[in-house]
Amino acid sequence: MPLPQTDDGIFRYVSVERHILERIESGELLPGERIPSLRALGTRLGVSVSTVNQAYMALERRGVVEARPKSGFFVRSRPDRPPAPRPSRLPAKPPTAINRGALIREVLGGMGRRDMVPLNVAQTDESLLPTRQLSRLLAKVATAGGESVVGYEGVFGNLGLRRQIAWRLVEAGIEARPEDIMITSGAMEALYIALRSVTRPGDNVAIAAPSYYCFLQLLENFGLRAVELPSHPDGGVRPADLAAALDRFDIKVVILTPNFNNPDGARIPDPAKAEMTAMLTARGVPVIEDDVYGDLYFDGGRPRCLASSDTEGYVLHCSSFSKTLAPGFRVGYLLPGRYAAKAFEIKATTNVCCATPTQIAVAEYLSQGGFERHLRKIRAVLERQARIMEERILRSFPPGTRVTHPGGGTVLWVQLPEAVDSIALFYEAKAKGIGVAPGNIFSSCDQFSRFLRLSYGNVWTPVVDEALTTLGRLAAAQAEGAGLPKDDDCPKHNP
Amino acid sequence: MPLPQTDDGIFRYVSVERHILERIESGELLPGERIPSLRALGTRLGVSVSTVNQAYMALERRGVVEARPKSGFFVRSRPDRPPAPRPSRLPAKPPTAINRGALIREVLGGMGRRDMVPLNVAQTDESLLPTRQLSRLLAKVATAGGESVVGYEGVFGNLGLRRQIAWRLVEAGIEARPEDIMITSGAMEALYIALRSVTRPGDNVAIAAPSYYCFLQLLENFGLRAVELPSHPDGGVRPADLAAALDRFDIKVVILTPNFNNPDGARIPDPAKAEMTAMLTARGVPVIEDDVYGDLYFDGGRPRCLASSDTEGYVLHCSSFSKTLAPGFRVGYLLPGRYAAKAFEIKATTNVCCATPTQIAVAEYLSQGGFERHLRKIRAVLERQARIMEERILRSFPPGTRVTHPGGGTVLWVQLPEAVDSIALFYEAKAKGIGVAPGNIFSSCDQFSRFLRLSYGNVWTPVVDEALTTLGRLAAAQAEGAGLPKDDDCPKHNP
Repeated sequence: MPLPQTDDGIFRYVSVERHILERIESGELLPGERIPSLRALGTRLGVSVSTVNQAYMALERRGVVEARPKSGFFVRSRPDRPPAPRPSRLPAKPPTAINRGALIREVLGGMGRRDMVPLNVAQTDESLLPTRQLSRLLAKVATAGGESVVGYEGVFGNLGLRRQIAWRLVEAGIEARPEDIMITSGAMEALYIALRSVTRPGDNVAIAAPSYYCFLQLLENFGLRAVELPSHPDGGVRPADLAAALDRFDIKVVILTPNFNNPDGARIPDPAKAEMTAMLTARGVPVIEDDVYGDLYFDGGRPRCLASSDTEGYVLHCSSFSKTLAPGFRVGYLLPGRYAAKAFEIKATTNVCCATPTQIAVAEYLSQGGFERHLRKIRAVLERQARIMEERILRSFPPGTRVTHPGGGTVLWVQLPEAVDSIALFYEAKAKGIGVAPGNIFSSCDQFSRFLRLSYGNVWTPVVDEALTTLGRLAAAQAEGAGLPKDDDCPKHNP
Repeated sequence: MPLPQTDDGIFRYVSVERHILERIESGELLPGERIPSLRALGTRLGVSVSTVNQAYMALERRGVVEARPKSGFFVRSRPDRPPAPRPSRLPAKPPTAINRGALIREVLGGMGRRDMVPLNVAQTDESLLPTRQLSRLLAKVATAGGESVVGYEGVFGNLGLRRQIAWRLVEAGIEARPEDIMITSGAMEALYIALRSVTRPGDNVAIAAPSYYCFLQLLENFGLRAVELPSHPDGGVRPADLAAALDRFDIKVVILTPNFNNPDGARIPDPAKAEMTAMLTARGVPVIEDDVYGDLYFDGGRPRCLASSDTEGYVLHCSSFSKTLAPGFRVGYLLPGRYAAKAFEIKATTNVCCATPTQIAVAEYLSQGGFERHLRKIRAVLERQARIMEERILRSFPPGTRVTHPGGGTVLWVQLPEAVDSIALFYEAKAKGIGVAPGNIFSSCDQFSRFLRLSYGNVWTPVVDEALTTLGRLAAAQAEGAGLPKDDDCPKHNP
C-alpha cells in the first residue's frame, strides 16, 4: 500500500481504514467476520498498533465495524454509508433571471487569502502538481525559443499543443483533429467563448441545478435566463428531464458538466450522455460540455463525454490543465464544433490569442509521456482525501447531515439539517478563518440554502482537520438553535 | 548620424535625405540656396557619392530640391510635402448598426501568412523587440519560481508588475496606484473588459472614424451601435464634434485612441484631451482610451492621455506591451477607474486571470530599467521607416494620392485618387502576395473606400520596397481605367 506523497498521521490511519473498507467491499471480509488484530495488520502494513487502533475506532464510529469486548473488531451486518443529499424536488422550472453576482463576489472575496483554510476553492493543491518539471520545461522553452516564444501564436493557438490534446482526447472517446481545437486561457475562457458563440441576450439556457457559480455569473452578465434541470448526486441530469425542458421551453443551449459536476460530484452515466447528445443533435440544440474534472476519476477508467458521440458538431467541449498541471499557465481548450467561425471571431476580439511560452511548455510536458502516471498519483491522493473528509463530516457535523460520495473531482456537497442556513454558516466560518462555498451560489434560486460545497483538493493537514471539526460545531450550534423552517424551492415571485 | 540597426542601401540614402530635409526645415538651408555637393556630403556623412546622388534625386522627385545643370542641387522655394488626406466631411452621423465582420475576416485571413508581405499588420517587427533578453528573463523566472510561477495570480494580476506599470504611467501624467491596475491579455482584452463594463446591447458608442477595425468587430459582436466622430489626421477627434454628438445622441461610452489613432495616426493635442476628459466627466459619460501606441512617439516627449486629467474615474485606460516588448506574452493592462468592480467580475468570468510566468518576466524586465533605452531605439527605426514609406508612396502611387505624416505609431493612412477602390486593390494585392488593409474596414459605413492602411512596423527590406512599387502600379492601373465616381459618405439607406 503506497502511502501518499504528503504523508502524516492522518493519512497513515486513513490508509488503514481504506484497506479494511476495500476488503469489506470486495467481499473478502464478510459481515460478522472478525477483522485482523491490531498487531497483525500493523505488521502487515508497516504501521504502528496505535495507527491501526485509530483506524478501527474511526471505522467503528462510521458504523462499519463493531468492537466486541475481548474479541476484537467485527464487520457489521449493514455498513452505513453517509446518506447522499436528496436531489432537488422540482423538474425544470420556468426560465429565471439570475442575480447572484453580489453574493458570489462576497464568497470570492476570501479566495486566495493565505490566512484562510481554503475549503472553498475547487482546485488541486499546488503541491500535487508537477511544478518543478513544468518550471524546468518553461525555462528550456524560453532559453531555446527566441522569436517563436515572444511572438504571437495564431488565434487557435500552438499547433504542437493542439496535436498533443487531440491525441489525449482519444482516451475520452473523442475524435478531434488539431485544427478542431482552440487553445483558451483556461476552461473558463473556453466556456465564455462557447456561450457567446451560441447565444444572444435574453436567450434561455438549460443548466444543471446545482451548477458551478461562474456559469451563473456568466449567464447573468450576458443577460441570459436559466432553465434549471435537477442534478441527482447518483447520476446527474437525467435525459428525461432534459427532454421535458426542451419540449416546454425555447432553449438555445444546454450547459452540462457530465463528469463530476461541480458542486454535487454527479457523473452522468455514459449511455445517458450518448442519449442526450443524440437528442440535442436531433433538435439542433448546441450543448456546452465542461469536462474539467474528466481526468480526475477515482475508478472505472476514463469516463466518456457528450462529445464522444457527437457526429454533427453540436457539442462545444471545454476543458483545461488547470486542475491537473498548472492553473497559472492558463492553458485550456475548446472544441467549438460547428461554431468554429464564431468562436474564432470572439477569441480574436477578446484577447487575440493565448500567451505563447506556457502553451509550448505544456505541449513539451505532454509529449514527454509522464502525464498519465502523474494523473494516477493525484487521483489516488484526491480519492483518499475525499474519503477522509466524508468521514470527518459524518463524525463532526450534526445528525441529519448528508454528504456525497463522489467518484471523481475535488469537491463534496453537504446537505445540512433543516435549521441550518449556509449563508449564516459561511459568515461564521469566515470569522474563524475558514473558507466554504454556501449552496445558494450554485443555483438561480434558493433551493440550496442548506448546502455547503467543501473542497478536498487541498492537502490534508491538521489545520484542515481542525477546520472541519469547527465547521461541524458551528453547524451543530445552528441546528440546536431555534431555526425557522426553510423553503428549499424557488421563491414563487420569481418569473 | 547614427544609422539604424537594420542597415541597407535604402536606409543609408534615406538617412541622407532626412539630413537634408532637417537642415531645410531648421532654416539652415534656405530656399534658393545650393545644398552641399555630392562629394562634400558623402565625405561628411561617411557614405558614397552614389548614395548621396540617390538621395538628391529622391529629393528632386519630391520637389524639395531642383537640379541646375552644371551647378548642382538647390532648395526649391516651396518644398512640397505629401498632402495629408482630407478628413471625413460629415460631423457625427446617426447611430449605425455595424456589419463589417465578413470583410474583416477576409482581411484577417491573410494575417500571419509567411508568404505575404505583411503591410496589413500594425505591429512592431519581432527583430526590433528585446526577444533574447525577455527569453532569458523568462527562463530565469521559470527556474527560480516554483509554485509561484505555476499557480494562479489574483484576478487583477501580478502585484510586482502592477507596481512597475504604475511607475511608468507617471511619465504619461497618469497617477495610478498598483491596486488601480488590472493586468489583461493584451490591450485587446483591456478594451473588451472596458467595453463590457459600461455597455448593454443596443447602446450607442461614440467612436472615431476611422477607427481600428477590432473596435468595430467588438461593437458588432455586442450588438452596440456606432456614432462616428470624424478624425482629422492633424488633430484627431475635435472636442466640439464630441460635444455635438453628446448633445444629440444618448451616448453610453466613447472610445478614443488619442495618441496615434490606428489607422490615421492622428494625435489629439494634449489640451484637447484635457478638455474632452473634463467634458465627459461633467456629463458622467465614461471613455475608453486605447493608448497602445503612446510610447511610440517620434518627437516632443511622451504625449499625455485622457487619463492624465481624470479625477473621477470616468476614463478606462487601456494599453499593453505587445507593440514594444513581446506580443506573444499577452501582457496588457486596464485602469478601470470607477468601474473596477464590474471589470473584476468580467475578468473573473472570462478567464479568471492572466498567465503567471509572462507577467513576472515583464515585471523583471521593467524593473531592470532598460525599457526607455529600448523604446528610444525602436522609435528611431519606426520614424525612419515611416518617412521612407511616405516617400515611396509619393514616388510610386498615381497622382492625387495623399498620405499621412504621423508623429508616432506604426501605420500610414493613404487616400487614393477618385477612381481607385481599396477593396479591389486589396484583392489585387493579395494575388501578388501583398497584404494591405482596405479603408472600408475602419468605419461602419463606406466613407473610406478609397483608403488603405499600410504598416511600416516591419523592417524595411527590398521585398517591402518592391511591394510598395507594385501597389503603386496596381493603384495607377485602376486610376487610369474607367473608374466610376465614388461617394465617400455614408450610404443614405443606412439607419
